[in-house]
Amino acid sequence: METTLPNFLKQRAYLTPDRPALMFQDEIITFAQLYAKAIAVSEQLASLNITEEDTVAVLLKNRPQTVVVLHALQQLRVRTVFLNHRLTPVEMAYQLQDSQSVLLISEDEFSQATEQIHDLDKHISIFTIKELSSLPHHSLEILDEFSLDDVCSIMYTSGTTGKPKGVLQTYGNHWWSAIGSSLNLGIREDDVWLCAVPLFHISGLSILMRSIFYGMPVYLMEKFQEDVAVKLLQSGKITIMSVVTATMQRILHKLQDEKLHPNVRCMLLGGGPAPRPLLEACVEKGIPVFQSYGMTETSSQTVTLAPEDSLTKIGSAGKPLFPAQIRIIHNGKQCKPMEHGEIIVKGPNITIGYLNREDANKESFQDGWFRTGDIGYVDEQGYLYVMDRRSDLIISGGENIYPAEIEEVLISHPDIWEAGVVGMDDETWGKVPVAFIVSNKQIPAHELQQYCEGKLAKYKIPKKVYFVSSLPRNASNKLLRRKLLDLIQS
Amino acid sequence: METTLPNFLKQRAYLTPDRPALMFQDEIITFAQLYAKAIAVSEQLASLNITEEDTVAVLLKNRPQTVVVLHALQQLRVRTVFLNHRLTPVEMAYQLQDSQSVLLISEDEFSQATEQIHDLDKHISIFTIKELSSLPHHSLEILDEFSLDDVCSIMYTSGTTGKPKGVLQTYGNHWWSAIGSSLNLGIREDDVWLCAVPLFHISGLSILMRSIFYGMPVYLMEKFQEDVAVKLLQSGKITIMSVVTATMQRILHKLQDEKLHPNVRCMLLGGGPAPRPLLEACVEKGIPVFQSYGMTETSSQTVTLAPEDSLTKIGSAGKPLFPAQIRIIHNGKQCKPMEHGEIIVKGPNITIGYLNREDANKESFQDGWFRTGDIGYVDEQGYLYVMDRRSDLIISGGENIYPAEIEEVLISHPDIWEAGVVGMDDETWGKVPVAFIVSNKQIPAHELQQYCEGKLAKYKIPKKVYFVSSLPRNASNKLLRRKLLDLIQS
Repeated sequence: METTLPNFLKQRAYLTPDRPALMFQDEIITFAQLYAKAIAVSEQLASLNITEEDTVAVLLKNRPQTVVVLHALQQLRVRTVFLNHRLTPVEMAYQLQDSQSVLLISEDEFSQATEQIHDLDKHISIFTIKELSSLPHHSLEILDEFSLDDVCSIMYTSGTTGKPKGVLQTYGNHWWSAIGSSLNLGIREDDVWLCAVPLFHISGLSILMRSIFYGMPVYLMEKFQEDVAVKLLQSGKITIMSVVTATMQRILHKLQDEKLHPNVRCMLLGGGPAPRPLLEACVEKGIPVFQSYGMTETSSQTVTLAPEDSLTKIGSAGKPLFPAQIRIIHNGKQCKPMEHGEIIVKGPNITIGYLNREDANKESFQDGWFRTGDIGYVDEQGYLYVMDRRSDLIISGGENIYPAEIEEVLISHPDIWEAGVVGMDDETWGKVPVAFIVSNKQIPAHELQQYCEGKLAKYKIPKKVYFVSSLPRNASNKLLRRKLLDLIQS
Repeated sequence: METTLPNFLKQRAYLTPDRPALMFQDEIITFAQLYAKAIAVSEQLASLNITEEDTVAVLLKNRPQTVVVLHALQQLRVRTVFLNHRLTPVEMAYQLQDSQSVLLISEDEFSQATEQIHDLDKHISIFTIKELSSLPHHSLEILDEFSLDDVCSIMYTSGTTGKPKGVLQTYGNHWWSAIGSSLNLGIREDDVWLCAVPLFHISGLSILMRSIFYGMPVYLMEKFQEDVAVKLLQSGKITIMSVVTATMQRILHKLQDEKLHPNVRCMLLGGGPAPRPLLEACVEKGIPVFQSYGMTETSSQTVTLAPEDSLTKIGSAGKPLFPAQIRIIHNGKQCKPMEHGEIIVKGPNITIGYLNREDANKESFQDGWFRTGDIGYVDEQGYLYVMDRRSDLIISGGENIYPAEIEEVLISHPDIWEAGVVGMDDETWGKVPVAFIVSNKQIPAHELQQYCEGKLAKYKIPKKVYFVSSLPRNASNKLLRRKLLDLIQS
């Protein structure tokens, strides 16, 4: 049975008009105000003849007006393509063409990129938010309901090979993701979710969606800055924050001997397996860090630690959210507890598929299950442990080596700030692990190798060590291991 | 798109096995234990060849083993018919036949009723819980998933005329009801919901379903007793309780000058419009009473006050839960704010229809909207005010009189404990309002009428006053106005 729900933002503005929806620096916008602003922008978009058949792309920063535009697009029921700021204009133009976007909404800061996009694709209209604001208002019939089956957003993900694929996220995917999270983390009247992750990633967009469903304010940051974040986390204003390993690390460093405000009840940690020393340091400091597992295709977290396990199940990503399921598969068979295999996931939060990619859809979906390409295992109680991206796996002399395991050991060294491990071609072993280190000291390689002995099997000890000023990360601060070797080849 | 979710109880037992699911006197049952018990009973039921095609009825008290049986039936995916204890065997036999139940599960206390049912219907198997427990176990394949479209429960409701109708409640209806409630009331780790309402009513069953979805313990009472309830509400163990006007009234009386424990964050008040003096007395005592509106057909509350409105919007039932909608209709047209009309409701929590009642379904459903038969209005901000059951409306000389309005005034009299008002045939006016009073004093009628003057228009003042020892109520303590006149005719 197709499920329709009341127009999300309209319903929220009706139910709790005066609650704050959005906080940004000193600005506070209520749900009623957010809805009024979104309707105004949707009326201006309607003057461009944008209708529910269309796809519209956005290249926008984490700012209140971006949130307004995103809701305006939902009010028009168009599909929204979220462009990553770090892409080259050529990459952006590809996503615009692949999604058949008719309009790109951007801002002045990106004028260089949009000019190049214009040169590459003469068909697409490009408007800045400022230009939109001077358009006339065309009256619109406001939607009473949203269908959970309709596509809401498209976010491109890059595999290791081939062109990026557009992940289709329905209104239902967002709804179920938010509900699954609420059944694990709960919903409290005083909740405020700090969003310092990009809105063009699912980690950011999912916070906005939860805000509407829960009637909860989002505190928006234009970008992550540890000093501002720590100040907020110590102010008592924030109860939940989404972080990745690198940002959690930076918060920890900044905090030093200080503590977070006790109102902070969850640091939701996603974006890849977290090194154990980091998690232990958090527990020691009384920071309630909840490891989780998810991706664009699962519309954010689909596996997360429960409150009662956050201190005892260190290293695990937890169990599935209530509406979701996980299995570990190897050679087409379900693995026993503790056996490693590919993680496959199922649930109403999982994407309905990739746009225009029959081949990838066939490969990734089977009987309603989605193949993540990640390697992991579940323990006897069903807790998930994520090892690594399958594509990051290093096979050395027939042995499987998970970079995350080696990185974890390296990071536990007191002088190492960040570490990335990748496989390098080797005549004897096929591949061998090599390490990229961020540190304020030049530690001799043999000293580091010695440090790893006893902690790692011999074949896992990095054969070479490179000191670099920073590691390649995506806009969510996720480590991009496949780009590590570029640091020495260039 | 059909939505399936993981087998509810199995998933909960996997996610949080050690959390308490059920508390009853000194007994505590965890989710893992509840699941193991339910599977055991489902294996015993399987030995009776009960399969997912079947309908099974229960005539059971509020006890832990009842909860186990209800979950065992869900594990078998049979439809469960909930028999009200207060029905006559003839009424029960009707519901069994209408639903084509193949089995009735009961207990020794109801042996008199079940013997009569057996005489009326030789086809149905009748087993007590005790008898079930000695059956052999047949192995079963445990369901991985539940479809939200499948029928879970059937509860019969009586209109004022005709035979009772079986309301079909799907797994999805229960799911959406629970989710809607959580998006309004929130979910806290320390929540414990006190269930002193019958499990055979939607008010009770819906608490059990929330327990599974939220991972929240239910404190079960065999029946409502004010002294036990007040003790629990003062112990700090309880955070939420479902009440109706009469039970809230009795709690208030029992409390006298004492207070509830501050952990009690919501007294969820349903089962009909509440008299204002009661609500005001609660607010005065700092009791967080949340008026709500719902019925069997909406799978419990579908409109409820939000936390921030519970103290300021006294008398209103609130706004719809997030997934639901309401409208007020008169003569086929949508009413303006403050205009009275029939309340119609929509949402994925609304029943898919009545069993075997094509006529009633046609009458009650239109374009996905369900006609409640209740009269009410919304104010300028969209808060719902429920006046009365349309069927209880008294039309006197062409004027509409809502019994609840008169009862409210009567109850505000210091010597009146309970009041019920109904229309009595009158040659001049068609109908006139008469009052039934529970009091420890015989107040002269003219004194009461005088008390009403100034508070009520003349045509609303009860023409006659009857003092009775108790008012007719159903098993949820809801006032049955249509049975008031029986008190003087018999």
